[in-house]
Amino acid sequence: MKEELKVVGRGIPLKDGAEKVTGKAKYSADIKLSGMLHAKILGSPHPHAKIKRIDTRKALKIEGVVDIITHEDVPKILFHPHETKPMYVLDEELRYVGEPVAVVAAETEEIADQALEAINVDYEVLPAVFDPIEGMKADAPKMYPEGNTAHAQTEKWGDPGKAIKEADVVVEGTFKTPIQVEAPIEPRACIANWDGKELCAWVSTQFPHRVREDLATVLSLPLNQVKVVHHYIGGGFGGKKQEEYPFMPALLSMRTNRPVKLEFDRDTETLVGRRRYSSTQKVKLAAKKDGTITAIDFEAYYDVGAHGSFVGGSLALLLSQFYVYRFENAAFTVYDVNTNLPTAQPFRSVQFPAYHFALEQLVDQVAEKVGLDPMEVRLKNTYRTGAETKPYGAKLSNFAVEECTDRALEASGFMDKWKGWDKPVESTGSKRRGIGVGLGMGWSGWMKDRSAATVKINPDGTAELITGATDLGTGANTTLSQVAAEELGIDLERLKTTTGDTALTPDDYGSCGSRTLHSAGLAIRGAAQDAKKRLIDTVALTMKTKKESVEYKDGQLYITGAKRALSEVITEPVVGAYHNKPEKTVAPFHPALYVGPALFHVAEVEVDVETGEVRVLKYVAAQDVGRAINPTVVEGQIYGAALQGMGYSLKEELLFDRDSGKVLNPNFLDYKVFNPQDAPNVEVAIVESHDPNGPFGAVGVGEHGLTPVAGTVANAVYNAIGIRMHEIPITPERVLKALGKI
Amino acid sequence: MKEELKVVGRGIPLKDGAEKVTGKAKYSADIKLSGMLHAKILGSPHPHAKIKRIDTRKALKIEGVVDIITHEDVPKILFHPHETKPMYVLDEELRYVGEPVAVVAAETEEIADQALEAINVDYEVLPAVFDPIEGMKADAPKMYPEGNTAHAQTEKWGDPGKAIKEADVVVEGTFKTPIQVEAPIEPRACIANWDGKELCAWVSTQFPHRVREDLATVLSLPLNQVKVVHHYIGGGFGGKKQEEYPFMPALLSMRTNRPVKLEFDRDTETLVGRRRYSSTQKVKLAAKKDGTITAIDFEAYYDVGAHGSFVGGSLALLLSQFYVYRFENAAFTVYDVNTNLPTAQPFRSVQFPAYHFALEQLVDQVAEKVGLDPMEVRLKNTYRTGAETKPYGAKLSNFAVEECTDRALEASGFMDKWKGWDKPVESTGSKRRGIGVGLGMGWSGWMKDRSAATVKINPDGTAELITGATDLGTGANTTLSQVAAEELGIDLERLKTTTGDTALTPDDYGSCGSRTLHSAGLAIRGAAQDAKKRLIDTVALTMKTKKESVEYKDGQLYITGAKRALSEVITEPVVGAYHNKPEKTVAPFHPALYVGPALFHVAEVEVDVETGEVRVLKYVAAQDVGRAINPTVVEGQIYGAALQGMGYSLKEELLFDRDSGKVLNPNFLDYKVFNPQDAPNVEVAIVESHDPNGPFGAVGVGEHGLTPVAGTVANAVYNAIGIRMHEIPITPERVLKALGKI
Repeated sequence: MKEELKVVGRGIPLKDGAEKVTGKAKYSADIKLSGMLHAKILGSPHPHAKIKRIDTRKALKIEGVVDIITHEDVPKILFHPHETKPMYVLDEELRYVGEPVAVVAAETEEIADQALEAINVDYEVLPAVFDPIEGMKADAPKMYPEGNTAHAQTEKWGDPGKAIKEADVVVEGTFKTPIQVEAPIEPRACIANWDGKELCAWVSTQFPHRVREDLATVLSLPLNQVKVVHHYIGGGFGGKKQEEYPFMPALLSMRTNRPVKLEFDRDTETLVGRRRYSSTQKVKLAAKKDGTITAIDFEAYYDVGAHGSFVGGSLALLLSQFYVYRFENAAFTVYDVNTNLPTAQPFRSVQFPAYHFALEQLVDQVAEKVGLDPMEVRLKNTYRTGAETKPYGAKLSNFAVEECTDRALEASGFMDKWKGWDKPVESTGSKRRGIGVGLGMGWSGWMKDRSAATVKINPDGTAELITGATDLGTGANTTLSQVAAEELGIDLERLKTTTGDTALTPDDYGSCGSRTLHSAGLAIRGAAQDAKKRLIDTVALTMKTKKESVEYKDGQLYITGAKRALSEVITEPVVGAYHNKPEKTVAPFHPALYVGPALFHVAEVEVDVETGEVRVLKYVAAQDVGRAINPTVVEGQIYGAALQGMGYSLKEELLFDRDSGKVLNPNFLDYKVFNPQDAPNVEVAIVESHDPNGPFGAVGVGEHGLTPVAGTVANAVYNAIGIRMHEIPITPERVLKALGKI
Repeated sequence: MKEELKVVGRGIPLKDGAEKVTGKAKYSADIKLSGMLHAKILGSPHPHAKIKRIDTRKALKIEGVVDIITHEDVPKILFHPHETKPMYVLDEELRYVGEPVAVVAAETEEIADQALEAINVDYEVLPAVFDPIEGMKADAPKMYPEGNTAHAQTEKWGDPGKAIKEADVVVEGTFKTPIQVEAPIEPRACIANWDGKELCAWVSTQFPHRVREDLATVLSLPLNQVKVVHHYIGGGFGGKKQEEYPFMPALLSMRTNRPVKLEFDRDTETLVGRRRYSSTQKVKLAAKKDGTITAIDFEAYYDVGAHGSFVGGSLALLLSQFYVYRFENAAFTVYDVNTNLPTAQPFRSVQFPAYHFALEQLVDQVAEKVGLDPMEVRLKNTYRTGAETKPYGAKLSNFAVEECTDRALEASGFMDKWKGWDKPVESTGSKRRGIGVGLGMGWSGWMKDRSAATVKINPDGTAELITGATDLGTGANTTLSQVAAEELGIDLERLKTTTGDTALTPDDYGSCGSRTLHSAGLAIRGAAQDAKKRLIDTVALTMKTKKESVEYKDGQLYITGAKRALSEVITEPVVGAYHNKPEKTVAPFHPALYVGPALFHVAEVEVDVETGEVRVLKYVAAQDVGRAINPTVVEGQIYGAALQGMGYSLKEELLFDRDSGKVLNPNFLDYKVFNPQDAPNVEVAIVESHDPNGPFGAVGVGEHGLTPVAGTVANAVYNAIGIRMHEIPITPERVLKALGKI
């Protein structure tokens, strides 16, 4: 079943690791072009306003200020960023504090800053709305002519009303999740250079090929006169997709005929960049005495910010193979609502962390009421491999939930520690120790058809891979190289991989939805196979023998069984190419989308009932990755996701002033990103069930690891203090409130 | 028969014309890298010598001198340049005046020059040989252990001896041709940069992919750690192929870890670059009374210089589909002999200009003896379409000799001017005007299988072509772009073409043998067809319709007949690729080689019997190009070839001192390149017979135009003054000698 592999399965260090740690790696902001101008953004002081008049004359008089653009200067062409409302590069109406009002291009950053001071703007201040539920009311201030509800969707099957009425057990709750920011270590940057014939943009993006398409559309350039370069990316987490900011230096470069650099500082990164939506979820579960869950009633409101369109719950429905639990009856109603806050966009694992924060706690409550343990209730109600998931009948080709459960329980020592629902693992002084679990389900193969690759086999046995895929810091370049090297049967050192330039690499959809390894990997494997076929044809011809008697194995040539060095036989490289077959991958249901990688998490926490502080003592993340092409990379991804999930559960929350709409903590000093020292003891258990659809059995792992974390941590907190937390992050303040101590 | 085409057939200006004339185009020597060192070559003062001792210590002490390499420092790995003997980058034995002895790398060119002065070399001077016939003698000084005859070959069929004995007419002569230099307007240059992981070399070469292979071999680097970049090339004419000079900066860069630039000055270009061999041909033709040629006896000696291997007559035999005339009996014996002169290598049209210089005159002599006119004798004895050529039976798929003849006669007004063999067209004072004709045969499709291409169709209808082909100044990039644009049905403006980097373009054999348009053109057309197929599949899927009802024509989409803009239907680019099928293209006979494009030239000259000066008054070149993809480019190629041929006939000759072996005219002051003002009136007659094998019916045109020129001019001179010139260039001195006036 599992092929015998040489390069795949090895925890090879990142190909570009040395460049990164030595600082040799050139990120977009490191590009220096002669005559380069520096751009700075003037942000709106109001959460909602119209620009009545904008006067840049004084600013333009400042020595060294070369150009300024406002909403009056940008093309009146709407573009449609990824899952964000159609928008202009700069708009007359401003919808959040910090939204770009004008962009200055100057000889130095300092001069640009002076110019920002000198721009005079008259605003017509408009009423703002910050809460989705408020925003949906008829009398709420309108952010858009069509209202504030960006997207609403309902999914219903069976008769949930009846099922709930007839249920033995009904549990319910309202669960709130915060605004989490991606906080990539590399702030967004774009250097644009228009040379009169071609626009070249160095952009920190997960979507180079689609950013190219946006630039061409809005700037009215033919696609083949725009290229996007992206050699290194310092993290994206879903945020760095299609955005408005690359247009600013691009437009300024075309106006000034000089290269223009726009680099975000941390505050701008937090405001103008993207973030996770906050949510309010009202959820009800019905179950039988034996713990069988019979129905769910789910109503949720997602704050998608100034320009978000459908990034929250509705996306869950569009991809609704992921409910994880078998609901015979269900009613889902979700609303994505615009607010006068920074724009939200799908963030690592999209809405599933919020969904599971609610669901895993309610499932536990059902179990407690009927007297099952946390594993029993889950294994009783979750899907199994081969099941047809509701409501679209997507077949679960693989869902290794038992194996993940066993591995997680073992690694966490759950069985020894678990003393029952209302009994903490341990209780000493003010410290209560609790343990909890959570379930999740991943996916893979998103937009598979938009991946292509070229593979060249050289006569000396080395090879070259050209791919349009993007490595946003995940190690994808190394993992994808391993796929090619494996298929070619050569060591990784013998393979050169080129990527990072839309003009020279074949097409790719971009890095998101945990698609890169699966989709680009399949294209790369196809290209390598094509090159091998070409090689056999060439050798057969050169050696005047039948193709059947030529074999290429482990980078070695065998002619009627006799081993021959490649260089003895061929004198020229052979080139192979592959573009994944066109496939129908349109919502709501994706036959091309492989569903099912299972996750099972266990958290052991310590709550100090005096200070309210929650510490994670041990965290175990068991995850089915199909096959770990590079175990080190896979472990890093799962570890990173768990960490980001713990931050989401315990610390991270973008705060804003309810009156002014100003973000209060747009920096790393006030916004606490969860760090390794916050979680000393995270253990990753890799499960390899071998996905028949993926390259060498692999599935995507980028984001799923975040899904169960909040629910798992909350369940552990309940086990420690016997209180259900309905809002994250679970801060000391909230714990003390819950304990009735403040 | 002839397809209706839109882009093909149009004389579109060169895509990169503007860059070239405005100086924006960056040639290799224009590349500036920070910290770049400058390399200079110390040339041998002797035509033949061994280095006894070489002392660089004094030179290395000079401030700013960074490194010096000698034969002691280069890898002892032989490489085999294109049709040149295996050689070392720097050798202990020197075989021509100017051969590199040492190479200096310094902070400035001036310091490098000082260093050259300071290098002390003890030479053991060895006897030299400058004449091939001398060099073949047993007691001749040996340049190589195996002797001086680099290559000897004989081709014999029928019974020439008998045929000559029984012939009614026998004509014969010994014909000498000079050393012609390519004299590309861009001298050779190479900037090499070793970054510790990869060697990047900007090289002025026709063979980027094979230079990459040579660099990897000799420097013991994996192929995927070497890349050759070649954005613009200022002429090659066959000389800029695989050579020793790029190793020098490459090796110095790897030793110093700094970029190193080596740019030839004109003298170095002439000496260390390549050149055409000189030849001595002893030829005898036998014929019947009716003018039927029955036999040829051909013996020739070619001076291939210091390192040439088989570049002269023997190559003629290897490609011996090109004898043009039907010889029932033949004996060819040819010798390529090394001499202590700069190295020869195939130069535009290889040996055919020399061959036709002899043959066209002898054919005329047969005609004069039997009373035929110049056309009668040729049409009586030359091949026709469909004929099987001797000796390998290569079938002439197409040889439009009549049409070429008619077009040339018409354009030249030959019929009105021709008064007979011994009657000049006109005779006034010391001026004698004569007219003459010559025949030729071209080829196409050389090394076809080593061409590959990628074509991307963008949703906005623009497209992108990536090819490994090389434009050495011929306009190939424009012509190849027209092939892609035509196949895609879009305007040339909508196509972007990328080439010039071996790491990013698919493989290609290189530009030589008039192969580029034919071979790369077929790969490009194949890639465009593959992209179109992919497009249809994608559209059919997106529109939920059958492939059969989707059509892509003239860059437009038709779905069940209804016209749709591409952008309405597809949202992502489609990528197509093609690598020409592997084919057997091995000497002596090339089934893959298309044979036959016909040429017919007419020259009208004026000879001043007092001064001996020969002026070309009118020159007509009729040539079958299969199909003129870009008539302007085709005309430029044929015009340029005719001009270079006239230079070969009347002016160009590299002279050297028979004692010292020193070249006397290695510069443009003393070596007269034929310029447009030397030939005021050249008319090109394009014949399009549509080659079934070529892309859109095209065949290569790069070099064939040079083939008939010397013979044609010599025939016109004979018609003017009644004397057969047996040596070119036909200088005033040689004319006066022939006239017995000096």
